[in-house]
Amino acid sequence: MKIAKRLNPLDRTFLAAETRESMMHVGSLMEFTLPEDAPADWLRGLIDEVRAQAKAYPPWNLKLRHPQLLTSPLQAWLEDDDFDVDYHVRRSALPPPGDERELGILVSRLHSHAIDFHRPPWELHIIEGLEGGRIALYIKVHHALVDGYTGAKLLTRSLAKSPEDRDTPMFFAQPPPPSKISSEGGSLMAALLDAARAQIGSTKVITHALKKTLGKQRGALVAPMQAPKSRLNQRISRNRRFATQQFQLERLRAVAKRYNGTLNDVVLALCGGALRQLLCELGELPQAPLTAMLPVNIRPKDDPGGGNAVGAILASLGTDTADPIDRIAAIIASTREAKAQLSGMTRGAILQYSALLMSPLLLSQIPGAVGRIRPAFNLVISNVPGPREALYFRGARMDGCYPLSIPFHGYALNITVVSYLDTLNFGFIGCRDTVPHLQRLAIYSRDALAQLEAG
Amino acid sequence: MKIAKRLNPLDRTFLAAETRESMMHVGSLMEFTLPEDAPADWLRGLIDEVRAQAKAYPPWNLKLRHPQLLTSPLQAWLEDDDFDVDYHVRRSALPPPGDERELGILVSRLHSHAIDFHRPPWELHIIEGLEGGRIALYIKVHHALVDGYTGAKLLTRSLAKSPEDRDTPMFFAQPPPPSKISSEGGSLMAALLDAARAQIGSTKVITHALKKTLGKQRGALVAPMQAPKSRLNQRISRNRRFATQQFQLERLRAVAKRYNGTLNDVVLALCGGALRQLLCELGELPQAPLTAMLPVNIRPKDDPGGGNAVGAILASLGTDTADPIDRIAAIIASTREAKAQLSGMTRGAILQYSALLMSPLLLSQIPGAVGRIRPAFNLVISNVPGPREALYFRGARMDGCYPLSIPFHGYALNITVVSYLDTLNFGFIGCRDTVPHLQRLAIYSRDALAQLEAG
Repeated sequence: MKIAKRLNPLDRTFLAAETRESMMHVGSLMEFTLPEDAPADWLRGLIDEVRAQAKAYPPWNLKLRHPQLLTSPLQAWLEDDDFDVDYHVRRSALPPPGDERELGILVSRLHSHAIDFHRPPWELHIIEGLEGGRIALYIKVHHALVDGYTGAKLLTRSLAKSPEDRDTPMFFAQPPPPSKISSEGGSLMAALLDAARAQIGSTKVITHALKKTLGKQRGALVAPMQAPKSRLNQRISRNRRFATQQFQLERLRAVAKRYNGTLNDVVLALCGGALRQLLCELGELPQAPLTAMLPVNIRPKDDPGGGNAVGAILASLGTDTADPIDRIAAIIASTREAKAQLSGMTRGAILQYSALLMSPLLLSQIPGAVGRIRPAFNLVISNVPGPREALYFRGARMDGCYPLSIPFHGYALNITVVSYLDTLNFGFIGCRDTVPHLQRLAIYSRDALAQLEAG
Repeated sequence: MKIAKRLNPLDRTFLAAETRESMMHVGSLMEFTLPEDAPADWLRGLIDEVRAQAKAYPPWNLKLRHPQLLTSPLQAWLEDDDFDVDYHVRRSALPPPGDERELGILVSRLHSHAIDFHRPPWELHIIEGLEGGRIALYIKVHHALVDGYTGAKLLTRSLAKSPEDRDTPMFFAQPPPPSKISSEGGSLMAALLDAARAQIGSTKVITHALKKTLGKQRGALVAPMQAPKSRLNQRISRNRRFATQQFQLERLRAVAKRYNGTLNDVVLALCGGALRQLLCELGELPQAPLTAMLPVNIRPKDDPGGGNAVGAILASLGTDTADPIDRIAAIIASTREAKAQLSGMTRGAILQYSALLMSPLLLSQIPGAVGRIRPAFNLVISNVPGPREALYFRGARMDGCYPLSIPFHGYALNITVVSYLDTLNFGFIGCRDTVPHLQRLAIYSRDALAQLEAG
């Protein structure tokens, strides 16, 4: 078979990191309200139509040349001549009452299953039985095929900007876009991981360097801030928990204005408030504040012409502070300082600094490393720009879309938020064993917002 | 933690054989009709009650000591102190119309996921949304914990013999039975595999012997019958297809009587007829008849006192014969001959002979072996005795129960049948890629019966 696409070094890193426990696929959950004129067999017709699309275009028809040896030096993407649409597009249903909790449980389970590398590494699940006759789409794709942001962009090509347009073909049945989809700062996380990979070299080199470090001094990874040890920073098992929360952007913007911070500061404050409450209940709140790593776009010192660099900052989540107003103040102070520090650096320095911050994620798959290296941060929180217009799927209106990112060994929780229209959508994804009661984070983040509004 | 149970050599073999593609769990699907007086929240109440059973008894609370290294010489079963009932007992729903096809698709998917060895290796899925308001239970358990037959026996302890008895605790919430459950010839397959393992020794020894054989002469595994090459005898991938069929025992017995054969001969004739039709449609019918391996109970020559030996026979499926009546005649002749041959042997000879027949299953996980060794048979067909009385689950009547056995590399299809009350229940399980349209086997077996009745 002809090689359709070579793997870049970051793709290889994601294949090398894949294990039964630490799976490198990302996902997206989209919820829809059916059109009012939908006939009773609307979904049946939709599924028949989707399944009639026997042909898939790149990247959705690409499979690995060596599925049994992910790290093969001869690894490449080949076109799958036996593309089996029934395998990739699946129907599921929720048990009644079909509420958000049941949807979270089903998606957690679907996300806990490893991708089959003998086929193009993606699955689309059409989920029915949601309250109010609604439906959901859940898609899962391996990060080696497309990163989450690009994947989401490609997905939205299935969606129309008007409820009248009911002919837009499914994402996999469309030829690839003429030019590479612009990242618009969206695939920051992928860019950062790539920078880190390039800076610290191959896994072999990393392993060697790490062994030396561990041999001489424990807990010695140099980092500008030390994060407290917490239950989030352990090895993970293979099962996941997933929860979602949706906020009106207007409410978040009002809070940002009131406390003189950014929208991102409010996101951090909701996460910090929720994490504090959960850890208090578990009797495991660290004395020092939890810290989050955030991918950001920064204008470097040596590039006043306007070019941006991809950087990573560390922010306090203020979890040591009981008062929500003091907490958001601490968060705002820490992100200002971090951004000021970064923007005083040259492009090269930003890259090196960010690579250092990211390196724990890449090092995390080395056996024995987790638990011996003090974490440089406690979790990754990403904020990804999403669609600004209302989107429709065969006339069904998208109500929200929620990202599912990757928990790593040592980083058992990830919070990714994506904007859609006039909302901000939170996706909380964690290791089932390491983060019990993850569902409560979604509820507590809502409480945290109410406290800031009332405060 | 205290060792609760040591592994026997056969359990170890099943752990050693576990790979992403070749998974060693077995399953059972049970379908139920709800009691007429069932309130609307019947299922909700049932699930709440099941989940309230936070305590599990052996073997259902046992997990592996070394889940990361299945072949560890220190492997053992430990009690799981953190038994998480929500993980093991799951709700699922079928998309409408909830027919047998949709149920087959859902169970195929559930059966395609590897078991998590960090927990007691079993899952129970309560499936709702079946046509007519019916429900199903699907259970999956690793063969290293309990073999399929013993598992089914332990499961039926959850079921009551009367619709009025609604208090029988769930299987995992009952202390183990006082004495080892008698095998009654039911776990023949496990006994056979164990005999084969004992005869041919450890995997290392097998590998060595096989390499020698392959080096000298190809396709040279000595076997009393040579099976034709077929698409069933390839390496398998990790996905499964599952289909079910139920027959009235009365109809099968009438056909057996009419053609002067046994009930088992009729089972083989239905399988042979269905396989012939499917392979014809695929344009891949071998010239020579497919052969099946069947575990049987035999009275050996040197043991006239009544002790039985576990043996394996090879039977022709008559797939080279277009006429159904000639086909069943060929099948009956072949099983008679095979049983006569076996019963002329001593106990030791039966064991050696059966071990030889079984050895391909154990050899199949050695890379490169499949496709080079000519198969000694094309598939395993097992007939397992099941419950003879109507059984009830909290007042819901069991309509049928269908076994899911193990496809192996080189043996991509398994047909296991189990009796229940006045029915015989077929479970067809195969590798998704190797056995396309497996669902049709269920339909064609029904056609095959009609032909024999009409012929």
